[in-house]
Amino acid sequence: MEYSVIGKSVPRVDAVAKVTGKAKYTDDLAERNILIGKLLRSPYAHANIKSVDISKAKALPGVEAVLTYQNTPNIKFATAGHAYTLDPNRRDKADRLMLTDKARFVGDAVAAVVAQDELIAAKALSLIDVEYEVLDAVITPEAALQEGAALIHEDCPHNTLSTFGYQIGDVDEAFSHSDYIFEGDYQTSIVQHCHLENQTSYAYIDGEDRIVIVTSTQIPHIVRRIVAQALGIPWGRVRVIKPYIGGGFGNKQDVTIEPLNAAMTLAVGGRPVKIEFSREETMLDTRTRHAIKYHLKTGISKDGKIKAIYISALSNTGAYASHGHSIASSGGGKFRYLYSPEAIKYEPITVYTNLPVAGAMRGYGSPQIFFAFESHLDEIAKELNLDPLEIRLKNLVQLGWSDPLSKNRVLSCGIRECIAKGKELIHWDEKKAKAQDQTGDKRRGLGMACFSYQSGTYPVNVELAGARLSLNQDGSVQLQIGATEIGQGSDTVFVQMVAEVLGISVRDVHVITTQDTDLTPFDPGAFASRQTYVTGMAVKKAAEEVKEKLLNFVGEWMKISVSELQLKEQNIVNKKSGEIVISLQDLALQTFYNPEFANPITSDTSNNAFVNAMSFGVTFAEVEVDLKTGQVEVLEIYNVHDSGKIINPLLAEGQVQGGVSMGIGYALSEQILYDKTTGKVLNNNLLDYKLPTFMDTPEIGVGFIETEDPTGPFGVKSLGEPPVISPAPAIRNAVFAATGVAFNQLPLNPQRVFETFKVNGLI
Amino acid sequence: MEYSVIGKSVPRVDAVAKVTGKAKYTDDLAERNILIGKLLRSPYAHANIKSVDISKAKALPGVEAVLTYQNTPNIKFATAGHAYTLDPNRRDKADRLMLTDKARFVGDAVAAVVAQDELIAAKALSLIDVEYEVLDAVITPEAALQEGAALIHEDCPHNTLSTFGYQIGDVDEAFSHSDYIFEGDYQTSIVQHCHLENQTSYAYIDGEDRIVIVTSTQIPHIVRRIVAQALGIPWGRVRVIKPYIGGGFGNKQDVTIEPLNAAMTLAVGGRPVKIEFSREETMLDTRTRHAIKYHLKTGISKDGKIKAIYISALSNTGAYASHGHSIASSGGGKFRYLYSPEAIKYEPITVYTNLPVAGAMRGYGSPQIFFAFESHLDEIAKELNLDPLEIRLKNLVQLGWSDPLSKNRVLSCGIRECIAKGKELIHWDEKKAKAQDQTGDKRRGLGMACFSYQSGTYPVNVELAGARLSLNQDGSVQLQIGATEIGQGSDTVFVQMVAEVLGISVRDVHVITTQDTDLTPFDPGAFASRQTYVTGMAVKKAAEEVKEKLLNFVGEWMKISVSELQLKEQNIVNKKSGEIVISLQDLALQTFYNPEFANPITSDTSNNAFVNAMSFGVTFAEVEVDLKTGQVEVLEIYNVHDSGKIINPLLAEGQVQGGVSMGIGYALSEQILYDKTTGKVLNNNLLDYKLPTFMDTPEIGVGFIETEDPTGPFGVKSLGEPPVISPAPAIRNAVFAATGVAFNQLPLNPQRVFETFKVNGLI
Repeated sequence: MEYSVIGKSVPRVDAVAKVTGKAKYTDDLAERNILIGKLLRSPYAHANIKSVDISKAKALPGVEAVLTYQNTPNIKFATAGHAYTLDPNRRDKADRLMLTDKARFVGDAVAAVVAQDELIAAKALSLIDVEYEVLDAVITPEAALQEGAALIHEDCPHNTLSTFGYQIGDVDEAFSHSDYIFEGDYQTSIVQHCHLENQTSYAYIDGEDRIVIVTSTQIPHIVRRIVAQALGIPWGRVRVIKPYIGGGFGNKQDVTIEPLNAAMTLAVGGRPVKIEFSREETMLDTRTRHAIKYHLKTGISKDGKIKAIYISALSNTGAYASHGHSIASSGGGKFRYLYSPEAIKYEPITVYTNLPVAGAMRGYGSPQIFFAFESHLDEIAKELNLDPLEIRLKNLVQLGWSDPLSKNRVLSCGIRECIAKGKELIHWDEKKAKAQDQTGDKRRGLGMACFSYQSGTYPVNVELAGARLSLNQDGSVQLQIGATEIGQGSDTVFVQMVAEVLGISVRDVHVITTQDTDLTPFDPGAFASRQTYVTGMAVKKAAEEVKEKLLNFVGEWMKISVSELQLKEQNIVNKKSGEIVISLQDLALQTFYNPEFANPITSDTSNNAFVNAMSFGVTFAEVEVDLKTGQVEVLEIYNVHDSGKIINPLLAEGQVQGGVSMGIGYALSEQILYDKTTGKVLNNNLLDYKLPTFMDTPEIGVGFIETEDPTGPFGVKSLGEPPVISPAPAIRNAVFAATGVAFNQLPLNPQRVFETFKVNGLI
Repeated sequence: MEYSVIGKSVPRVDAVAKVTGKAKYTDDLAERNILIGKLLRSPYAHANIKSVDISKAKALPGVEAVLTYQNTPNIKFATAGHAYTLDPNRRDKADRLMLTDKARFVGDAVAAVVAQDELIAAKALSLIDVEYEVLDAVITPEAALQEGAALIHEDCPHNTLSTFGYQIGDVDEAFSHSDYIFEGDYQTSIVQHCHLENQTSYAYIDGEDRIVIVTSTQIPHIVRRIVAQALGIPWGRVRVIKPYIGGGFGNKQDVTIEPLNAAMTLAVGGRPVKIEFSREETMLDTRTRHAIKYHLKTGISKDGKIKAIYISALSNTGAYASHGHSIASSGGGKFRYLYSPEAIKYEPITVYTNLPVAGAMRGYGSPQIFFAFESHLDEIAKELNLDPLEIRLKNLVQLGWSDPLSKNRVLSCGIRECIAKGKELIHWDEKKAKAQDQTGDKRRGLGMACFSYQSGTYPVNVELAGARLSLNQDGSVQLQIGATEIGQGSDTVFVQMVAEVLGISVRDVHVITTQDTDLTPFDPGAFASRQTYVTGMAVKKAAEEVKEKLLNFVGEWMKISVSELQLKEQNIVNKKSGEIVISLQDLALQTFYNPEFANPITSDTSNNAFVNAMSFGVTFAEVEVDLKTGQVEVLEIYNVHDSGKIINPLLAEGQVQGGVSMGIGYALSEQILYDKTTGKVLNNNLLDYKLPTFMDTPEIGVGFIETEDPTGPFGVKSLGEPPVISPAPAIRNAVFAATGVAFNQLPLNPQRVFETFKVNGLI
């Protein structure tokens, strides 16, 4: 299909705003002398709160309110940013209070103050006396499951949040027909999103007695619901506004500070109160990515075909549920699209521990399970003396395959072409040949790993998206969407879609980047890599409706049959004669000022998507491992994606580079460390938490195999999260290839690599 | 018709916001260290600008830009806040530059500075050297028309802006059949709106390179167009936001400071710049109400029937056109609905003079012409020895009457009942009997006057109005309208309309009071008393569409025929059985979360009104005139209105009281004074301009005759402007009754009254 704007690298619509500082973020919008909210945190991982004495803090001049669980609503609420469900059995676990009545991790908020400034607030916190009854801290998931372990939440026996897995086919039967059976254990570590802008919000009560919250969120409509639920008020009494935001990566697909912020403004008669987390607070008391331990068992036939997969997973969700129950489940779900074995059984257990809360993070369970399985698969390949590419090519999903559980179908599939392209980019065969029989201290190796992903949450959740367009008098349009631009470039691709359908310049599509639950159409928000795919459908539909209305207007006004008209190069043209009937600009004026027919043209539409396309991709990496230091250097890395049609190659490339960079950190350096006894986090700051810097990051190669998925607008599929999934196993497999050592735990930082080499006798 | 919310005095939806200070006005929203724009004004009423030296001003530290006509666009534009028309012959007169190249009144802006603060800006103004060539100042309309008079605008011969009148029937013929012919001359004075909030705006350029203007306006969509026209850029490149505003009364139905404000931000690279007029500037350089001189000639039959009316009018529009051409015309148009004489001829001439600019003000030409005619009619009544009520009752329009020119029809008419009620309220007969043969220094008299008005501008302009509703998960809704709440209470009545149709509480209708041309539906704005009537139609239509969609949703989802369903008391009910099918709240949740049918319910509608209802009303006043001092005291005053159905009696009463208070000022004290030679305004401040204070204002009685107009939503007709029309002639007629002196010029302030009494030999 020939497009004029789709597929072109137009600059981001927010580029100028962001580089000139015109883009306003939450804190930029808060008034100067706003009241400040601050939180008092538990020094214990697990403790009952026997009493809280707030009298001294309240007496401090400049303190406006002091909050504890005793004067905030006693309503447990769930924080996960999922679309709501009408089925009570499928709702997120409601296990939180705004301020806890029992400390469940070191840093759990037990009280809060609202004061006239930061210093007074900090001083006031120091004046609050909390009497704790310290309980046994449950730090590991294994300890959590032990008989007699202290219960973190009274209503959760065995500290078990969820065990929702699945089985397809008869696994035992399939194993019994397998020629080989391989087993392995793998584990990932706790990492953190490290978005640029920390959690920040401010709240006030408006003249209509409604609570207004301006917040750095991916999910304004969900924040609205959850704040209302936490307060026990009708949802319509809350208004949430999302300005420009400095990244989220899933951490802002959760409701963290907003309910407490709402309670704070309520406590001070509706005056505006701001909560602005420090980096240390963000890393401690928002969300992390789940550390998951896997046991894998795979049955293979002689010809290298995967017959059966059994996976058990033990996922550590920390002190509160957040997305915990669904992440282990979702990772297992998206994983099974890649190889579609005969039979597969997945048994995840998600448990509470007295650690910071794990939640949604880019990939949503996939980086973990693909690390495990793609590592495992390379070990199998080695055992079977197969090239890592070969074993995958034997097993990859086929076009037309339909998932037996979700019924989602593979209607476009470029994974084989992705592998071929990656192989070529990295010169797989040549380099592999060269890498034979290395003996020095520095050894090179090649690795690769694949992934599959979805393009939304259907059929698990309702996949609604809203879009609204209004035509201006000059033929330009405004576009409003409920979906959120969080840095991923969604506003730009939506603008391209509208420009494409209407045949106008991207400059003439004015996208409203601020979401406001009072003003913008309903859309659950930015998550699940759904926006270009799901919201894109609504945007395209709105543009098509505007186009149709334009033709209808001309038809009625000029008494011409609409079937004779088309919109072409900003003119309404007679299809047969090619004659220009009226220019779009003149027509736009008529829609406002024609005495008889005036009727401004808008579309206010919503799309309920009953489809979900599978994206695929692969990482190829070459590493050099220094045996003496344990240092792993990524020499080359390529991600090749089948994300359907690429709307904006430049933006897509940026998305992939960001994701791969995150994947490299996940592979080699990032890890939230905590004291194994007390549960206290040791490195919740950007000095001690080893996020890769620009200097640590190699050139990242990006390739696309552009399939056209029939279900996506213009053929698109997801690209937001996928880039982060396969770099870690690819790098791990490259180290495996270079050294023969099969690492089964992330990250492969120098200490772990060095120690493992020692154990394995390499040094 | 029985309503649950319509007709109830629910509190204003913005009451709490306004009394608690939560309502944010333009200046509240401007950032603290915003750049300040100030204007340099001509000291001469009429002068060519030979040169402007801005070098010293530019060199002053803290000055960011200095603007003159030489570095602002050389594009003449029109400022009147009318809906645009596609007919070039019917467009407003484009006679303005942002900064003039020729001074046309004392105060005309010839240059402007943008500086870091007020003081620097003021200093910079003093450093601009303008060399003027002083021309003859043309101060009176008669002088303007004189052969050889200096031309104020080169392209306007005889300084004549417009002469658009009309004739219905054959006036000469009708006069020739009249038994009596009466003539009279009347004139009104220049007055000013004196809205609480002076003209204020600020502008900046956003990240998309568009000009954003936040302004205290009645007409955001029109400001957008006119700013774009003034800059010569596409309209869509301008965004206008209207926050809460502190009154307008027509003065903000004009584009005054916004184009220059846009030029200012352009001159400083898009940084925010604010213009905030002082009271003195507002009274000098925004708009005033036209002073108009009338000559009236009326032919009457023996039985007191008006056969023919001839009116010539000479309207002084000041230095620029603004609304000038249409106000004289519109006044004459709305006037002729009241008595529908056999024949009528109206010959207005609107001329430029070197005085401040006259524009739209509450009543839009009607206070002037009704002052003239209703005064004239009382003189006729006296001559014919008829009671003032009697002559009117003989001539009032009949139900069903259709205006021969506009084709607007009288489909509801309560003017006779209004007169009856007013008569009763003031005890007309009793007091009239008592007032016979007074001889003391203080004499009492009764007067009354009627008026007719329209409910919008149809068929002169396209009468579009947009409304958008979106249903929340709790069954509450958001309402967005392009029409502007400017203090008149429109937001509240729209909320009532929605609540009525949907059967929900007004508390569950959240109206978005801020208009933003990017976000809110198209609507030209607040003027012509059109909002409740015209925009109300769109609001009602939107609510009805939401209701219909709710029923359709249930029908499709539950497979029930929609014809069996109705919305009743927040439930969807089976029409026949009366059984509750589902509550509105539960249904609202389904519209968001039903896996199969979810589709959030919204309406985004526009209404093109091809109707225009006539409102009617009457003022009854009793005055006491002090012959010695010339002081006129209003003892009692009642306005009785036929404005169709009254949506909110409390608000309507407030509207009437405000209008009558303005009418009393118009009658007795208000007047912009100027030097008859230099044209310099002498009292552009609230000390010397005699606005009635609380102490000057009597208790104002309000009555309504509730007709139901079939064309208006819920039967409404206009009420915004009407209350201001008839108080002045009623008071004048009361003075006439008390003293026998027929005043023919406003205001009846002590000086004029005293002097006139002297001339008439009363003292």
